[in-house]
Amino acid sequence: MAFRKKFNFKTPTNKNTGFGDNASNYGGRFINKSGDANITKSGIGFLDRISWYHTLLTVPRWKFFMVIFTFYFVVNLFFASLYMAVGIEHLKGIVPQNDLDKFGQAFFFSVQTFTTVGYGHISPSGFLSSLVASIEALFGLLSFAIATGLFYGRFSRAKAHIAFSNHALIAPFQNQTALMFRIAPYKNTNLFDAEATIIMGIPIEENGIMVNKFYSLALEMDKISTLTLSWTLVHPITEDSPLYQMKEHDFQSIKGEIIVYIKAFDDMYSTTVVKRTSYTFGEVCYGARFIPMFSKNEENTQTILHLDKLHLYEKVSL
Amino acid sequence: MAFRKKFNFKTPTNKNTGFGDNASNYGGRFINKSGDANITKSGIGFLDRISWYHTLLTVPRWKFFMVIFTFYFVVNLFFASLYMAVGIEHLKGIVPQNDLDKFGQAFFFSVQTFTTVGYGHISPSGFLSSLVASIEALFGLLSFAIATGLFYGRFSRAKAHIAFSNHALIAPFQNQTALMFRIAPYKNTNLFDAEATIIMGIPIEENGIMVNKFYSLALEMDKISTLTLSWTLVHPITEDSPLYQMKEHDFQSIKGEIIVYIKAFDDMYSTTVVKRTSYTFGEVCYGARFIPMFSKNEENTQTILHLDKLHLYEKVSL
Amino acid sequence: MAFRKKFNFKTPTNKNTGFGDNASNYGGRFINKSGDANITKSGIGFLDRISWYHTLLTVPRWKFFMVIFTFYFVVNLFFASLYMAVGIEHLKGIVPQNDLDKFGQAFFFSVQTFTTVGYGHISPSGFLSSLVASIEALFGLLSFAIATGLFYGRFSRAKAHIAFSNHALIAPFQNQTALMFRIAPYKNTNLFDAEATIIMGIPIEENGIMVNKFYSLALEMDKISTLTLSWTLVHPITEDSPLYQMKEHDFQSIKGEIIVYIKAFDDMYSTTVVKRTSYTFGEVCYGARFIPMFSKNEENTQTILHLDKLHLYEKVSL
Amino acid sequence: MAFRKKFNFKTPTNKNTGFGDNASNYGGRFINKSGDANITKSGIGFLDRISWYHTLLTVPRWKFFMVIFTFYFVVNLFFASLYMAVGIEHLKGIVPQNDLDKFGQAFFFSVQTFTTVGYGHISPSGFLSSLVASIEALFGLLSFAIATGLFYGRFSRAKAHIAFSNHALIAPFQNQTALMFRIAPYKNTNLFDAEATIIMGIPIEENGIMVNKFYSLALEMDKISTLTLSWTLVHPITEDSPLYQMKEHDFQSIKGEIIVYIKAFDDMYSTTVVKRTSYTFGEVCYGARFIPMFSKNEENTQTILHLDKLHLYEKVSL
Repeated sequence: MAFRKKFNFKTPTNKNTGFGDNASNYGGRFINKSGDANITKSGIGFLDRISWYHTLLTVPRWKFFMVIFTFYFVVNLFFASLYMAVGIEHLKGIVPQNDLDKFGQAFFFSVQTFTTVGYGHISPSGFLSSLVASIEALFGLLSFAIATGLFYGRFSRAKAHIAFSNHALIAPFQNQTALMFRIAPYKNTNLFDAEATIIMGIPIEENGIMVNKFYSLALEMDKISTLTLSWTLVHPITEDSPLYQMKEHDFQSIKGEIIVYIKAFDDMYSTTVVKRTSYTFGEVCYGARFIPMFSKNEENTQTILHLDKLHLYEKVSL
Repeated sequence: MAFRKKFNFKTPTNKNTGFGDNASNYGGRFINKSGDANITKSGIGFLDRISWYHTLLTVPRWKFFMVIFTFYFVVNLFFASLYMAVGIEHLKGIVPQNDLDKFGQAFFFSVQTFTTVGYGHISPSGFLSSLVASIEALFGLLSFAIATGLFYGRFSRAKAHIAFSNHALIAPFQNQTALMFRIAPYKNTNLFDAEATIIMGIPIEENGIMVNKFYSLALEMDKISTLTLSWTLVHPITEDSPLYQMKEHDFQSIKGEIIVYIKAFDDMYSTTVVKRTSYTFGEVCYGARFIPMFSKNEENTQTILHLDKLHLYEKVSL
Repeated sequence: MAFRKKFNFKTPTNKNTGFGDNASNYGGRFINKSGDANITKSGIGFLDRISWYHTLLTVPRWKFFMVIFTFYFVVNLFFASLYMAVGIEHLKGIVPQNDLDKFGQAFFFSVQTFTTVGYGHISPSGFLSSLVASIEALFGLLSFAIATGLFYGRFSRAKAHIAFSNHALIAPFQNQTALMFRIAPYKNTNLFDAEATIIMGIPIEENGIMVNKFYSLALEMDKISTLTLSWTLVHPITEDSPLYQMKEHDFQSIKGEIIVYIKAFDDMYSTTVVKRTSYTFGEVCYGARFIPMFSKNEENTQTILHLDKLHLYEKVSL
Repeated sequence: MAFRKKFNFKTPTNKNTGFGDNASNYGGRFINKSGDANITKSGIGFLDRISWYHTLLTVPRWKFFMVIFTFYFVVNLFFASLYMAVGIEHLKGIVPQNDLDKFGQAFFFSVQTFTTVGYGHISPSGFLSSLVASIEALFGLLSFAIATGLFYGRFSRAKAHIAFSNHALIAPFQNQTALMFRIAPYKNTNLFDAEATIIMGIPIEENGIMVNKFYSLALEMDKISTLTLSWTLVHPITEDSPLYQMKEHDFQSIKGEIIVYIKAFDDMYSTTVVKRTSYTFGEVCYGARFIPMFSKNEENTQTILHLDKLHLYEKVSL
């Protein structure tokens, strides 16, 4: 098999990736583009394998608000039905014209209780309706306590605001070639002490069975003190690299994957943030180099980081 | 004593466990299955040795809600009694039919004040009842401020969502044997840079008195970059292992304990999480191996982690 | 000077303590018993040198509630005065009997607005009183938002629940002596990876001027994995120790101080907690040893930590 | 070029600063006095490059309150307009005298709903106005949930309360000179394990193009255990220093910059805090030394840190 000859077997493998080595157990890529592991869990109930709090922290904003509005609507429907069941005549101040109107007024009374607005033009007059209202008011306050916690959780969740270039490149570098991709911080946070770890995963045949092999790709520079500009990560393809002698068609035909971990200290959150992604070999662009993405401003007093240029590269022949 | 001969005295002991070495002071196991130390504290008042906040963070959900409901009920009973003491006639709008009804209406007025619903069909009319209502409204708001803090604390408490296999195994491993157990993450959080430390505690006779000895058990691999699949921890039983030459009946007769610490970076919480457990020798299964717990899906696009298989093993002869 | 001869000058000094070396600039002990630095700040306004938030987090519970009650009272006094100034006749529903009663009702209306209870038996009827009420309601909600933050801050502030023995001892230890003191965790939290650093500060004469010298005191064990029982910290007084050849009267006459830093990982807070204290030479008890403070329970199933014995020692002759 | 000869080329450069080395891309200083990178981002929408939450956490207090008041006013204007659109006659209890008064009363009803005060002297009577009020009450509660989160975020944001001296000095030091500046903690928080890193950035000509070179400046002491007093950071200008043989006029004519990173553990926040600043060569004062800034109090029981003396120095001839 031509592929095995080309492959650089001198490079020591990385056994501590946490990915299994039995390739036949694996489906698809190791890490999704988003950085999540490409794994589903089974054999355990949905609620046991989901942290509902963290799910609500990570859903997009519009979904989060949809959940809140739906909850608000359903809760008030429920309590309105309870007030109806108890007897609408125990809500003093309701002037019902028809059945629908009765339910509507019970619904709005429920809203006024749940939100603790309590205008009072409608008020509970008997024991049961007062009891339901008591429970609803407590439930309302607890719901908003939870909502407050969720909002704060969403705000304060430490996120690594780092963008990755769409493609990794095989670019010329000091009379040889190097695997390169770049990252840039895109929000008004300050990142320090950034560290990068690059691992290549590749399924290869060993003693007749397919196994996943993982190789740490050495970086020219794997740490920087300040991540305020773009950072181009460079893995020089020397004789020690597992990518040595790989050509354009190899990247197209082999099902390899380059897994990227970035770690930095965010002084806005005062904590360490982590971001991952991966480039499949198909996302590696052979023979290209990045176009610079920062320049000084006209007054020569500040440096401008052009985030729209993050993904831009130009083709070069190697 | 046959046991002492078998025991591998070349292995250096670990003196920094924090457990005392005088075995006669010790009762029961070192670490409970749940990971808590098997220790009670005495000689200090209950409130001084309990962090009520953390107790409320760690009680099961249903107990937490019980605490809230009980508090709500008791507080309103208390303030209802106060309004009765001040004189129910100072609550304008109450139309009492009998004494029970009086108290009931005072109770619901208290609810409406405590929750700040304040419908207003009942309202305080004199100085004293207004004062009590003022205090209750403040007290209500502060209570809900505390409840909000508790909810958020419960949500955001960093927990290591890691499950341990019920048993540790003595399994075949590279022409010898190894102590193995496995762990798996079971929630939708991402764990990185996982580290494991395994310590064996065993009471042995030294100069006529029983002392606790602790040994660090070397792992084939004590760190992995990503903990998204199951991780089988392997302590090879070589000549350097304190378990060398221990047989099935030794594990049954000796009161030893294997203490496990797992540490990982959880990028959902952006913090380091820790989980502990222990296996007594009685929980070690001699001559067995784990059944694989992950496989690819049918479309070969994802890997499935079968959490229900975490504890499964099959017997093998050693 | 006899003292200088006795002092062990071979021990290297620790220059990185952060305390200045000019003894004539220093007043009193370096670190207070509570662990705070014995320093006041001047030349900067009170508000600039105080973090009011952290001050409110650290004041005792009763003071914190006093602050809240006082604030609540003052705010309502202020708004009641505003409603009076605007004209009490613009508060519909008030039935004033005399001037004091007018103010009282304005005060309670203010309470009902500030807490958002809003019964409504009193309501603002003109533009100005409505405006004041609008501002008060907003102010009320923001105040409770702040209170919520303060409560949560107080709860969740990571505190090292570690108690120190009142005295450090000079105790017999392996045919020589050692400086010892002990610590114990006293709450239901779990502390791990505890580390201790001990520094001795002593003013000595050098070239005619008094300078502070600092020495790191080596510990027999400066790290333990689990801090669930008591931990006795032991500095063996060998030839390398700066305490070598110091006798009882030296500890009484010399103005030295032993500064203690404890650091541990608290898995309840998932964070590193720190605790400090210091023992002046006057707080060192020469010729004594600690009485054991843990034992097994009667059923031999658990270990009991007797926190009331933390400070207990017995005299021994050296 | 005289400058290049003087410059100490033996010093190894620091390549891991994260600042680019192409000087022609750079405008102005690297790091602003405030510690933020002197960089703007372009090519991406405002909302994408701003974390609105963090912006609201870092704006000055008065701006934060302005945002809240403006939001409150605008929201109530909006909902008042909605009530007008639905029909003011559906707000029972309004006694309008003219159109402006109508709007005013709708506005105050909106306030009472948004804040959940709900006096009830005005109340919604039809379906549409009840619906609008329902939405407003929910919106109000969510707004205050967000405000609570923002307040708590502002309070609890870990900030390094460290002040830097305005100038760095070239001062006499052990028969040679040293670059010095000093820092002091100014709030009632406790800082430990402080570490400093000093990097000098300087544009120099290399092969005809201007490149930025960065040099780590070695400190006499780069770590201290306790940062409770002032700390003078000292870079001795030895033969190994890139500042060797630089004279007063060099500091005035060369566009260099000294970038400072301070890192410490704050035990109030139980977290690592970071502070940065920079001194341009123009802010270096040649031939000066700091005036001591702490002394003992009169009773000799405490040490006083004079924060007003932080910036004070006196000229000396070198």
